[in-house]
Parts: sequence; C-alpha cells; structure tokens
Amino acid sequence: MKETKHIAIVGAGLVGSLLSIYLAKRGYRVSVYERRLDMRKHLIEGGRSINLALSNRGIRALEAVGLAEVLRQNAIPMHGRMIHDETGNLNFQPYGKTGQFINSVSRGGLNMVLMTEAEKHGVEFFFEHRCLGVDFAKTELTLQEYEAVKHKSFDLIIGSDGAFSAVRGAMQFTDRFEYHQTYIEHGYKELRIPASDSGDYLLEPNALHIWPRESYMLIALPNPDRTFTCTLFLPFEGPSSFEQLNSKEAIQDFFEKNFADAVPMMPTLQEDFRDNATASLVTIRCYPWVRNKTLLIGDASHGIVPFFGQGMNAGFEDCRVLNELLDKHDDKWKKVLPEFQELRKPDADAIAQLALDNFIEMRDLVADEDFILRKKIEARLHERFPDKWIPLYTMVTFRDDLRYSYALETGRKQKAIMDEVLRRPGIVKNWETINLEEIVNKL
Amino acid sequence: MKETKHIAIVGAGLVGSLLSIYLAKRGYRVSVYERRLDMRKHLIEGGRSINLALSNRGIRALEAVGLAEVLRQNAIPMHGRMIHDETGNLNFQPYGKTGQFINSVSRGGLNMVLMTEAEKHGVEFFFEHRCLGVDFAKTELTLQEYEAVKHKSFDLIIGSDGAFSAVRGAMQFTDRFEYHQTYIEHGYKELRIPASDSGDYLLEPNALHIWPRESYMLIALPNPDRTFTCTLFLPFEGPSSFEQLNSKEAIQDFFEKNFADAVPMMPTLQEDFRDNATASLVTIRCYPWVRNKTLLIGDASHGIVPFFGQGMNAGFEDCRVLNELLDKHDDKWKKVLPEFQELRKPDADAIAQLALDNFIEMRDLVADEDFILRKKIEARLHERFPDKWIPLYTMVTFRDDLRYSYALETGRKQKAIMDEVLRRPGIVKNWETINLEEIVNKL
Repeated sequence: MKETKHIAIVGAGLVGSLLSIYLAKRGYRVSVYERRLDMRKHLIEGGRSINLALSNRGIRALEAVGLAEVLRQNAIPMHGRMIHDETGNLNFQPYGKTGQFINSVSRGGLNMVLMTEAEKHGVEFFFEHRCLGVDFAKTELTLQEYEAVKHKSFDLIIGSDGAFSAVRGAMQFTDRFEYHQTYIEHGYKELRIPASDSGDYLLEPNALHIWPRESYMLIALPNPDRTFTCTLFLPFEGPSSFEQLNSKEAIQDFFEKNFADAVPMMPTLQEDFRDNATASLVTIRCYPWVRNKTLLIGDASHGIVPFFGQGMNAGFEDCRVLNELLDKHDDKWKKVLPEFQELRKPDADAIAQLALDNFIEMRDLVADEDFILRKKIEARLHERFPDKWIPLYTMVTFRDDLRYSYALETGRKQKAIMDEVLRRPGIVKNWETINLEEIVNKL
Repeated sequence: MKETKHIAIVGAGLVGSLLSIYLAKRGYRVSVYERRLDMRKHLIEGGRSINLALSNRGIRALEAVGLAEVLRQNAIPMHGRMIHDETGNLNFQPYGKTGQFINSVSRGGLNMVLMTEAEKHGVEFFFEHRCLGVDFAKTELTLQEYEAVKHKSFDLIIGSDGAFSAVRGAMQFTDRFEYHQTYIEHGYKELRIPASDSGDYLLEPNALHIWPRESYMLIALPNPDRTFTCTLFLPFEGPSSFEQLNSKEAIQDFFEKNFADAVPMMPTLQEDFRDNATASLVTIRCYPWVRNKTLLIGDASHGIVPFFGQGMNAGFEDCRVLNELLDKHDDKWKKVLPEFQELRKPDADAIAQLALDNFIEMRDLVADEDFILRKKIEARLHERFPDKWIPLYTMVTFRDDLRYSYALETGRKQKAIMDEVLRRPGIVKNWETINLEEIVNKL
C-alpha cells in the first residue's frame, strides 16, 4: 500500500505531461494544473520556441513510456550543422558518426501527444488553473480558476511549471533557499522560411543550419510542413543589436549584409520581425529542489539557455531518473526525494554551464579554422579509441548512459589536452600523422 | 515646479524612515507603507538584531538631516575588538587611531526616533499595510490592510522593504532582472548578558567583544541598560553546529568548552537558546534597481551579511547619495534614478563582498599571530603615511569620503603587498625595522 496516493503536478508543459504518464503508470492518482488553455482545443500564443531538438536522453525517457516510435515518425533527423558563411558558402559538419543525429520536433505537437497519452492512463488535466501559492507544511496548493480561489491538499506536489515557476516562487521565500536567475546579453526572435512554390524545402532539411557571425547568429530548424523556423540570436544593446534594428531599412540592411543567402528565402522577414516578440534567455539555478513533500523538476529547478538543445532532454531525463529511484526505493518518497535532488543537481549545473559554453561554439567557433582542425583531430581520436575519447558533443547528445556532470568534467580535460596539441608547431600540416595514442593516454 | 510630487515608500525600517525625512525636507508628499504594527505603540516580535554598529557613513547621513547629535547621545562608543581566547585571556585591538570608534545603537530606538522625526516633517505612516504587488507601468501599489485590498498610484515608488522585499519580488518577474540570493552555512542566535547585581556592565562596555573559534564565534555588543546582546554565529549543520546543540547538556557543554569565561555571565543561556530563533544569513544581489518610476534602496537592493557592521550604514549612505543626486539634477528623477543605480551598484557589490570576507577575519584571523603582525605593520604604515596607506577597516568604517568599491580594490592591493612582506625571512623578529617607504610605494 503506497503512502503517497494523490499527486498534483503544476504545469502541463512537456515535462509535466511526460511525468504524469510515468506516475499514472505507477498507479498514482495524478492531477495536472495548467495556467493556460488546453492547447489541443485553442491556439496558444507564442513566446516559446516552435521546434526543439530531441536527442538520445529525451528519446530514452520517451521509450520507457512507449512513446519513442510515435514521436520519431513526426521528427526530422538533423545529421549535422550546415554552416553558412558570409559569402553563402556551405560547410556541413556531422554531429557524430553515421546514424547519430538529433531530431527537429514540434513543441506543441509533442506536448499534445503527451497530454492525450496521459489522459489514456487516467491523468486529469485542469486548465486555466493558476498556482498562486504553496503551503509546504500542508502540501497544499492555492489555485485560481477565473475569479475563484481554492485550496487543495495532496500527498505530493511536483512543480514542473517552467523557468518562471510559481511553485519555486513560493519556495524562494522559505529559509535558506539558494536562488540565482541570470540573463545573457542576447535576446532571440523567431522568423520563418516558407516552403518553395512547389512545396519543397528551400534548404537541406536534414541539418541544423547556422549562420555564425561571432557576436550573434541565425539558425534554422526544419518543420514537417517543409518550412523552417529561424531564430536570430543577437545582443539587446550595443553596435550590432536589436536596439539598432529599429526601422525596416535597418533590418533589411542587417540581414542583407550578414545573412545574404537567407534573405531571398524570407519573404515575410519584415512582418515576422515586427510581430514576433524579442525574448530573453535566462539561466535558473536553485537549491534545494525539495521542501517537505513538494518537488521542483525540469526548467522549474534548472532553466537553461537553448544552445545545446538539451532543455527538454534534461527535463525528460529528470523524469526517467525519478522513475528509476521510485523503482529502487519501492515508491518510498521520503528516500526518493532527497536522493533525486542530490543525484541530479550536479548534472543540472553541468548542462547549464555546457549550454552557455556551446553558444560561444555555435556563433563563433564553428567557422574558425582552429576549431575545425580540433574537431577533425577529435573525430580521429574517437574513431581510433571509441570508448576512451568521446567528443563532448557526443557525450551530451548521444550518450544517454553518461551523466552531464561527467561530460562537463571530461570535456574540460579534453579541452586542456587539445589546447596543448593545437599549440604544437606545424600541427596544421602534420595533424594526420600525430601520435593519437599518446594524446588519448593523457586523459 | 516638480513633476514628482507624491512618493510612496514601502517599508518603515531604518532606511525607509530616514529616506522619508530626506524627501519630506525636499518638499515631497511622502507616504510610508509598513507591513508591521507601529513599534512606538506595540512590542514588535524579534527576528532582527537588537543592536547595530553605527559608524561614519551612517552618521554622515544622519547629520544631513540634523539627527547625528541625538543619536550619539544614545550610542555606546566601541573603540576596538576585545578578543577572548579559549583560556579567558583578553586582548584589545583598537579599530583605528584614538578618537576613531564605532557605536552600538539600539535598532528599535533609532527606528522610532527616525519615524517621529519624519512625522514632524509631514511624512504619513500607514502601518499594517502589506505590499502585495507593484504595477511598474502605472507606478501603482497593491496594498492589503486587514482583509481589504486597494490599489494606489503615485508619482514615484521606493522599495526600502529589506532583504525580503516585496517590491523587489514584483521586479523579479520583469524581464531581464538579474537576481541572486545566497546563504552562508552559518546561522545566528541572539543571547544575553545581563547587568551585574549592582547594575554595572559585566564586561568592558567600550569594546565589541569577540570569542573567535575559527569555524564559529560569539560576539557581544553593549546596550545602554548595562546589558550586552550576544550573538552566536555557528554552522547550521556539521560537527560543531546548531544541529548538534539539541539538548540542554549539549548547549551547556559547548559553551563551557568554548566560551568558558562568558558562561558565568549568561544565567539565562538555556532559556535564551530555546526561545530565540536561529536565523539565517543571506546576501542579495540584483540589478537593475529601477523599473520605470520604481526604485529599490537599502537591503532591498543589496542585502549583506552583518560582519562588517555596514548594513545600516550602507543603506543610510544610499539615502545621502540619492539626496546629493537630487541636488545635482534639480530633482529631475529621470536623470537621478539611472545615475543612482549606476553609481551605487559597484559600491553595493563591494560591501557585500567585504562583509563576507570580514567574517573570516573575525572568527578566524583575529586570534592568529600572522594576522596580528600584519595589523601591527599596517598600523605603522598608516601612522607614517596616513594618506597613502589606509587600513581596509579604516577605509570602510571611518572614511565616509571613500567609496566601498575603492576600499575593496585598495584593500586587495594592500593584501597582496602584505602577503609578500609576511613571507620575508625573519619578519617576525625584524618587522619594526623594515623599510616602510618601499612598501607603501608598491601601492
């Protein structure tokens, strides 16, 4: 007989919806409270990215509830980065070995599949219910539905309500709660590349397109309807910034100067630029994630920037790890909750850092000679010593058996070794004949 | 004619009350909203330190509104630190030169004087008014008085509502608001040393007493009623911690072992320990401090730990600096607000760091031979070159003409120089004959 019977989940986003399936399958009564309307019945306003990169960690978490295959069918594989330089030249950089790829999926589509699946398992969704507060002693939510405010108590509350979590907001006022929210100087704006007149993709669909321009970048991910969603990442202020793009002419000039090959594919550039919000990019770090019988999960406990494509994957991995701990401790939440936060916090911190680091790589280094040589040598090392030298991108994206904290730590060691290798005289010419074994043994 | 006429101040603590006087004297209509009861009519529950160290920055800010003399009469000068070692030996370390001292003042007493003075200048206080929210576009407060919620708009709102500021809480949900709250591993608990049977001080009154024990410490500050307020700073968890002091025996043993000379002076140790809360110690950093026509000030914008005795002094200095900017810009708040935050933020960050650093000095170094020698050499340097080598403690505490950020930076340079001096062979013996000019010229 389980002590915990009725679980409230706050937030019906990707993580909350997947978690509700996991918990319902374990036999819990699960009620999900969502501030917004049911996106299956209403068109929900934007403000979040339209498509996301689903990779191995996310897929593994979906497999455990039998959903990986369904989603794979609606995903578009991206096998590498397609770099667009200033003159329009293309350079394809594979993400890993043949067969290793990430997947462009629709955020909304995935969310709806998860909610519908959850309902099949008996999960109840309550939309237009805003969490106003949490009583951690009573495990009680204060919920607002239209003008009515009600209090409901549960055996357990889980806050999966995102980077601006109301559950965490309540926790922040409990004693000794460490909390950090920090923004990068860049914002982002979503733009669009439509399908061609004949209904085809205007760019190679099986790649993530990047126009790296050092202090800023444009990227594009494919959608099943043959369009691409582009995202411009640009500082809010400064010489090249959103602040400067304050007229149609300034926008047009900026795009023609920097993304000349993309401009002819963006007929609605001006309208998209005007209509779509410029959004900010936050990193959230906090601790503890547990107060009494209330737990934070996903972005609510570790909001990260999107540059490693790991936000959703990390949140899904949270669900998988939590489920494994429930197996291990026979659903004894008193053991599971502290162990979950202790186990998972270093990994959350690691992916937050990796995501920040990868922005520099994407916007700056991918077009850099030194970086390309480094990647070539690392690919050789991995080919020759597949278990000993695993490139950082591979560890994070394709190796769901390795923890993020391990990936960060190992990646730092690799970087120090490679820094030394790249300082060697003549390396540009003789890199194909260097002693790989000697390098791998430094690790 | 001033554009800004009616100013709301949220929080009638020390900073809010002083600020209200400054603004009323400039001709503004000032309304102060305070969550708690009027402390002049009701006994307010504790949770905050009973006495505080008022030093030059605070005094200067009080002088500008004609209150320094009144307060000096109710203050007890503390000329230095009285160090109590494990065996009960005393060692007095002066804070500065003769005539340089800090002042033990009653938090409540000072607050009441400021409120009463403010009312003389026409400031209106509204007690039992809780700030529920702020509309930054409308410069509007949502205020709760008992069961009634009302909205009131102003020309300007200033949040001086402390480390757990409700005004800042609202600001935190505005875009790109940097916010960090971080706790040290130590908590504190206030205890008491009464007057002697004959009504005298049981310890030297003109000193700040410290029992430094490396990972923790006890301190005592004198009160006008001949008692001392003691504060125990101790980790929450670990081998020597509040967690371990879970029985009368454990408390008694701990005090007898560590503070043997204090125990006979603490007849209510057990009751005080049981009745007084163990409080935590937070540092708050945020930015910006201004949203439209709402400003944060004092602990609301820069909550710091108490180890440099500068929390109140920094908040009072905020008021003085703001007032000077109003003079400079002829009360044009549009110029004053951005300039205030840009000017003051580096100083707030500096005193936050200095306060954290000084905890290590107080609990650990003041009893250290190396530290004492360092202080002796620095005193010589200051004596010989009074304008060139000013000890860090003096810059922070007695030199209200020097910014905190200057003190931090100069203190770091001094530390690097002194580290080298103390590594010199034979320094313990020959310190009185070293070349002071050579040292000062390194700065």
